[in-house]
Amino acid sequence: MVDLSLLLSYLAEDAPHGDVTSDLLVRGRQCTAAIVAKQKGIAAGLEESGALFRYYGAAVHHTVRDGEQIEPGQVLMELSGDATAILLVERTALNIIGRMSGIATKTSLLVQMAREINPRVRVASTRKTSPGFRLLDKKAVMLGGGDPHRISLSDMFLIKDNHLMLVSIDEAVRRARAQTLYKKIEVEVATPEDAVRAVEAGADMIMLDNMPPAQVARTLKELAIRKAREKVQIEVSGGIDETNIKEFARMDIDIISMGALTHSIRNLDVSLEVQKAAKSFTL
Amino acid sequence: MVDLSLLLSYLAEDAPHGDVTSDLLVRGRQCTAAIVAKQKGIAAGLEESGALFRYYGAAVHHTVRDGEQIEPGQVLMELSGDATAILLVERTALNIIGRMSGIATKTSLLVQMAREINPRVRVASTRKTSPGFRLLDKKAVMLGGGDPHRISLSDMFLIKDNHLMLVSIDEAVRRARAQTLYKKIEVEVATPEDAVRAVEAGADMIMLDNMPPAQVARTLKELAIRKAREKVQIEVSGGIDETNIKEFARMDIDIISMGALTHSIRNLDVSLEVQKAAKSFTL
Amino acid sequence: MVDLSLLLSYLAEDAPHGDVTSDLLVRGRQCTAAIVAKQKGIAAGLEESGALFRYYGAAVHHTVRDGEQIEPGQVLMELSGDATAILLVERTALNIIGRMSGIATKTSLLVQMAREINPRVRVASTRKTSPGFRLLDKKAVMLGGGDPHRISLSDMFLIKDNHLMLVSIDEAVRRARAQTLYKKIEVEVATPEDAVRAVEAGADMIMLDNMPPAQVARTLKELAIRKAREKVQIEVSGGIDETNIKEFARMDIDIISMGALTHSIRNLDVSLEVQKAAKSFTL
Amino acid sequence: MVDLSLLLSYLAEDAPHGDVTSDLLVRGRQCTAAIVAKQKGIAAGLEESGALFRYYGAAVHHTVRDGEQIEPGQVLMELSGDATAILLVERTALNIIGRMSGIATKTSLLVQMAREINPRVRVASTRKTSPGFRLLDKKAVMLGGGDPHRISLSDMFLIKDNHLMLVSIDEAVRRARAQTLYKKIEVEVATPEDAVRAVEAGADMIMLDNMPPAQVARTLKELAIRKAREKVQIEVSGGIDETNIKEFARMDIDIISMGALTHSIRNLDVSLEVQKAAKSFTL
Amino acid sequence: MVDLSLLLSYLAEDAPHGDVTSDLLVRGRQCTAAIVAKQKGIAAGLEESGALFRYYGAAVHHTVRDGEQIEPGQVLMELSGDATAILLVERTALNIIGRMSGIATKTSLLVQMAREINPRVRVASTRKTSPGFRLLDKKAVMLGGGDPHRISLSDMFLIKDNHLMLVSIDEAVRRARAQTLYKKIEVEVATPEDAVRAVEAGADMIMLDNMPPAQVARTLKELAIRKAREKVQIEVSGGIDETNIKEFARMDIDIISMGALTHSIRNLDVSLEVQKAAKSFTL
Amino acid sequence: MVDLSLLLSYLAEDAPHGDVTSDLLVRGRQCTAAIVAKQKGIAAGLEESGALFRYYGAAVHHTVRDGEQIEPGQVLMELSGDATAILLVERTALNIIGRMSGIATKTSLLVQMAREINPRVRVASTRKTSPGFRLLDKKAVMLGGGDPHRISLSDMFLIKDNHLMLVSIDEAVRRARAQTLYKKIEVEVATPEDAVRAVEAGADMIMLDNMPPAQVARTLKELAIRKAREKVQIEVSGGIDETNIKEFARMDIDIISMGALTHSIRNLDVSLEVQKAAKSFTL
Repeated sequence: MVDLSLLLSYLAEDAPHGDVTSDLLVRGRQCTAAIVAKQKGIAAGLEESGALFRYYGAAVHHTVRDGEQIEPGQVLMELSGDATAILLVERTALNIIGRMSGIATKTSLLVQMAREINPRVRVASTRKTSPGFRLLDKKAVMLGGGDPHRISLSDMFLIKDNHLMLVSIDEAVRRARAQTLYKKIEVEVATPEDAVRAVEAGADMIMLDNMPPAQVARTLKELAIRKAREKVQIEVSGGIDETNIKEFARMDIDIISMGALTHSIRNLDVSLEVQKAAKSFTL
Repeated sequence: MVDLSLLLSYLAEDAPHGDVTSDLLVRGRQCTAAIVAKQKGIAAGLEESGALFRYYGAAVHHTVRDGEQIEPGQVLMELSGDATAILLVERTALNIIGRMSGIATKTSLLVQMAREINPRVRVASTRKTSPGFRLLDKKAVMLGGGDPHRISLSDMFLIKDNHLMLVSIDEAVRRARAQTLYKKIEVEVATPEDAVRAVEAGADMIMLDNMPPAQVARTLKELAIRKAREKVQIEVSGGIDETNIKEFARMDIDIISMGALTHSIRNLDVSLEVQKAAKSFTL
Repeated sequence: MVDLSLLLSYLAEDAPHGDVTSDLLVRGRQCTAAIVAKQKGIAAGLEESGALFRYYGAAVHHTVRDGEQIEPGQVLMELSGDATAILLVERTALNIIGRMSGIATKTSLLVQMAREINPRVRVASTRKTSPGFRLLDKKAVMLGGGDPHRISLSDMFLIKDNHLMLVSIDEAVRRARAQTLYKKIEVEVATPEDAVRAVEAGADMIMLDNMPPAQVARTLKELAIRKAREKVQIEVSGGIDETNIKEFARMDIDIISMGALTHSIRNLDVSLEVQKAAKSFTL
Repeated sequence: MVDLSLLLSYLAEDAPHGDVTSDLLVRGRQCTAAIVAKQKGIAAGLEESGALFRYYGAAVHHTVRDGEQIEPGQVLMELSGDATAILLVERTALNIIGRMSGIATKTSLLVQMAREINPRVRVASTRKTSPGFRLLDKKAVMLGGGDPHRISLSDMFLIKDNHLMLVSIDEAVRRARAQTLYKKIEVEVATPEDAVRAVEAGADMIMLDNMPPAQVARTLKELAIRKAREKVQIEVSGGIDETNIKEFARMDIDIISMGALTHSIRNLDVSLEVQKAAKSFTL
Repeated sequence: MVDLSLLLSYLAEDAPHGDVTSDLLVRGRQCTAAIVAKQKGIAAGLEESGALFRYYGAAVHHTVRDGEQIEPGQVLMELSGDATAILLVERTALNIIGRMSGIATKTSLLVQMAREINPRVRVASTRKTSPGFRLLDKKAVMLGGGDPHRISLSDMFLIKDNHLMLVSIDEAVRRARAQTLYKKIEVEVATPEDAVRAVEAGADMIMLDNMPPAQVARTLKELAIRKAREKVQIEVSGGIDETNIKEFARMDIDIISMGALTHSIRNLDVSLEVQKAAKSFTL
Repeated sequence: MVDLSLLLSYLAEDAPHGDVTSDLLVRGRQCTAAIVAKQKGIAAGLEESGALFRYYGAAVHHTVRDGEQIEPGQVLMELSGDATAILLVERTALNIIGRMSGIATKTSLLVQMAREINPRVRVASTRKTSPGFRLLDKKAVMLGGGDPHRISLSDMFLIKDNHLMLVSIDEAVRRARAQTLYKKIEVEVATPEDAVRAVEAGADMIMLDNMPPAQVARTLKELAIRKAREKVQIEVSGGIDETNIKEFARMDIDIISMGALTHSIRNLDVSLEVQKAAKSFTL
């Protein structure tokens, strides 16, 4: 289900006192319009945009579904209704579609690169999202075929280097396990030794942070020696992008996580075109 | 003044039910920490981040001010206090600094490129921002030396192609002028003829949308013939980036606006490092 | 577009725990009702009231549009639906219509007085509105033919006496101009000399604050001497009301602004009359 | 206790994107200032204004308390601190003080007029307040010596003409009494007969709505005949103002309620004067 | 009228990031379902639950109305629509119905016990409700035939022992009466002497707090001696439950109030059963 | 960290228009007070209550920490400050402490009963909490030594009977696993066959719903035969309470979950006693 109050907060940001231009000039006018892709990619944000247009009374006809491949010139959505409603929502909708489709497209590309090498590896995002847009950044990652990873600090235990300055791996995992069985426990480690320690302490997942491929390999070997590889899921993270993802993908790991999926993106180019306008009256 | 409720909404997004890991593991522990730049650029988001840390009771010492040039390895802010507070705010603060500094840095670079050619030209952003982050995207543009342009649909009259399908330039400008003298009126035009029409109708600004340089030149000439150039401020917009900004900068225009300042950015890399921890107790 | 969440906040204020009387007594009853003017004036607030009644499921038939002249006894809106809905919204709707129509009516009267003398002068409101009701106070001013002036501190630069205790006119205008070209810059001045200084610094507008007519005249003369009159829009403000508006209107100024349009008003008298009730049942 | 979130909502209305002028021009400057009355009256809104200034870090010294009589030129509050904070809050604070003091002053005057005639009569307000400002309108009435009457539809039973079109007086009072003993029950009546009926049904209070003095007298007589006067409190309402309040006050009634206390007011004139500014720096 | 925003806040608590299971598994599927009682009792919360299901687009058919007696196995509500909507709302709806029906059932039982002895005595709840659920706890009490007592601290004057450590009964009642005639005044007393004092001061109600039956009797006698019994309503409170309610009910008191109606309850057992599912598609 | 905005929402519910009694009677008075337990149990809600008192300016001295055993008569917290602040927060604080301590106490008892039999079994709560109070109900469970289970529908995958009417166990687990590795997957099953199917499909946890002990035993045997017991965590749920918990505890299961921990509770009795009052003045 779409979170309408979140979407309306985006609109409030773009029109705290209304749309002064459209309210003045096109009040009471009806029109039809289309949202059109200018670039190739994976569509995302169409459900959210449609909900916003509908909230303001416009009729929406979806011609593409989120997650589908789209081509330049393709119509993503057809709209008809009150021109002030359509123009009020326009930019917010395009910003949502543009950012989410940009993320979905980038994710899809990286998933493809990784899976050509290793069909069972996953590509995951991080919490390096744009503040206020976390849920939609994460949804876009899923639409692109990525794993969203934890959504927030409330979701699971991720015991990081900063925690381990204050508590040992053993104690941290033990206390997390004692609190609840319903959350996964992951430990961020920087050395093969700590990786072994975390697995032996009972972590469900380990994150090999900023390890160069050689050290990842050594960690895998240490775990294999102790028959501990299959007890845990292994995530590699830190400084991975298009240029080196394949190097990591070819190792026996489960997940490659990448901040760049959400913190360094290029919006997909989409625009709204008013197609036909009819003179009409509403109060 | 910083808008604390906006900043807290970003934190709520990252911790709807609290930070389960830190609440469990580092409750009642004190520490000191530093935020450190990993890349060169223009600092932004430090004021907002500091306010968030302070809200949760941490002491904050600013070593850099927003808008200053920063170098890799430079400490941006020193923190001390309750470890759960510092780790709770960590990612939100880094996301704010990362995105804002990324935008400020990119803006600063483009302003520099344009002003080398034309010292009085301005570089402006658009409303193509990340939903929920508009105000900070715009502030980052200003910190980078750019003009924020309108913040929202409520700020000024911008009469765009979609409006002009429903009303003439003359009527649109006349009605806007009749409503209020306190808002600027800008008209988006696609031809020299419409540019002339908008200026003669009394627009304060015109936006030459997606015009190639040659057509911009022709528009300037038409305006000059009518002695109308000095009556109006001229913005060029559409498809402008690092590769072609200088071409536009060398013409007699006032503003170059670019969606890419905010819609296609790379976060500046910053991290938080816990430096020293002390065992201690608070309830 | 009407801001529904603002309107609902007004209702929540009038019924934090519901309408205990109607919930008890008229649950499940249907009725028709009319909103009727008791005084002559300019209608305002009908769109907002209609939206509130509709939100609670009542059918609304508008017989008058906002901005129209109304007469005592005239029906402004016809309603039908659930009696608890209509009685729940009643007082909030009447308070909105009463206040907004009172402001629109007063504004209309003052605009008429000023324009009889000077057909191109404008009457503007200030920010002296009732807290929580700013947007509707400003909309009412527009419906009465007034200029709303700035809506908030975020809209434009208005450099006032309190700023000028801390920064010079020249520096203030220069810094505002450097920040953005998209906002108007107005300077409040108390002497002809400062008026000249502000215009020469590049202000778009000057506000002659609390100047008696003779000093306004002298300011206009000083500006004329320097051929600076046409470079700027001139607002007179401070202590202007029905008794002296004509004195100012006859001078070569652009705008007369008056706090009294919103801070000292008399609500237009309107009432809601239940006309017919039918026994009926809904859960 | 002051409701800070309500007060902050008023500020958000006046500065959705901050105070662009002060943020640009007086950042990091300290100053002292005073709020000064320009007219004689009863002070109100000082507690609320003080809370807002303090929230933004200014030091506040109260020289007058709410409810006290004030004179033109009198300093109501002294402020010192960050100039951006003081100028940000300025207009909101003045609007709160202006409106509340206006209401308190008018109420005080009417209470005095009524009590000269009848020392035990009360003057009450209605729900004809400015939407969004109900609680402070009501508090101002109390500061002026008035009875606030019900604050909202949730407070008590007030059975009005519109309810009585759908249910009889007897049934209405009986059902209200059966629901709870903790709320007062008042019935609005237009005839002496209905007044008697309401008292006999057990109403705690009756409101004689729009009755001319002669009919009020007749109602009192009918109640006296039935020894019912002392069982009920009697409110007269409808069209009462300065011109006729004494006529009603001289009758044996308990309360005179007047919409005009809040719907037709003149703000008390107050201003904020920056007194001394010091160059200084904060981040 | 149902307060939708309150109900939606309950849902947000149960699904801050949506229902991850249903969103993944049953998107686009339609189903019918029923809410079924597992225990005998008084139905409550059906209106609120129906409103939530309808908000998310499900069709709702009510087979039972709030306040009616229900039996194990009885269908309370039939639903049809999108499976994700129905499953999203399921637990929140059941928690509302379960708690409210539990309270209504307990209240009904205690009302019955008390009225068998004394048909005009009332059973009232207190403010010992579950935070965040006050309004619905109080509504449930009413549906069970109880008196809700004051809803909040804003409703009426209840002068308690803690106030009386700071002010005398006489002064407290006098000041409350002076402030407004529209709120009831109740005084909590612990001795017959204070009861007499409160009635003579003019209290509308007195609460005999934690008095054993013998002392209640003595208080009633003291009041009778002074012919003061009929001037006041008498509430007994403190430590009353199923085991001793009849002892109090047989005395000449008006109200028995019990925290246990809301602070110590057992939810009525209800469940939602998906009955038929159809494969289908919506975007 | 305590969620202050949630706590303030509870207070707003108890005082939408302030505390009319205390605001009138004890304004400007200082006092000291203590929160005292009337019953034996496990303390909870003290941190939240302390935060609320401190927010309103009272000084708080904690004499007991959440999770500690308390005895009748024990002082839990000492307060001093403005009497209006302390009395404003009183009931909300007591309701929070009462409910949370009631839940913690009940949980602790049941944990003890289960662990006497099986020291490694866990007792978990469900989502059958009081709407609006979920987070604190869950925290209370943890303070009593219980496992909170999932907090909301967003936390993990719990594939229930209603989902399995629309999708097979195999497909459901496969799709959940494909979406993310960061959330646990639990399947609710009603037969030993489905339990085996869920484990073989790769579920992390299975919930044996409403199975009598004999069928739980048969399920464990079927899993043991397939060497599948150790691959999964096993929760039993449905109709378990004090009377039968030991029967389940003695089997080889991991978790016993019980709705009754939160849906059928008795608040722990606590009260606030004003101890000393001093006459004093603040504005």
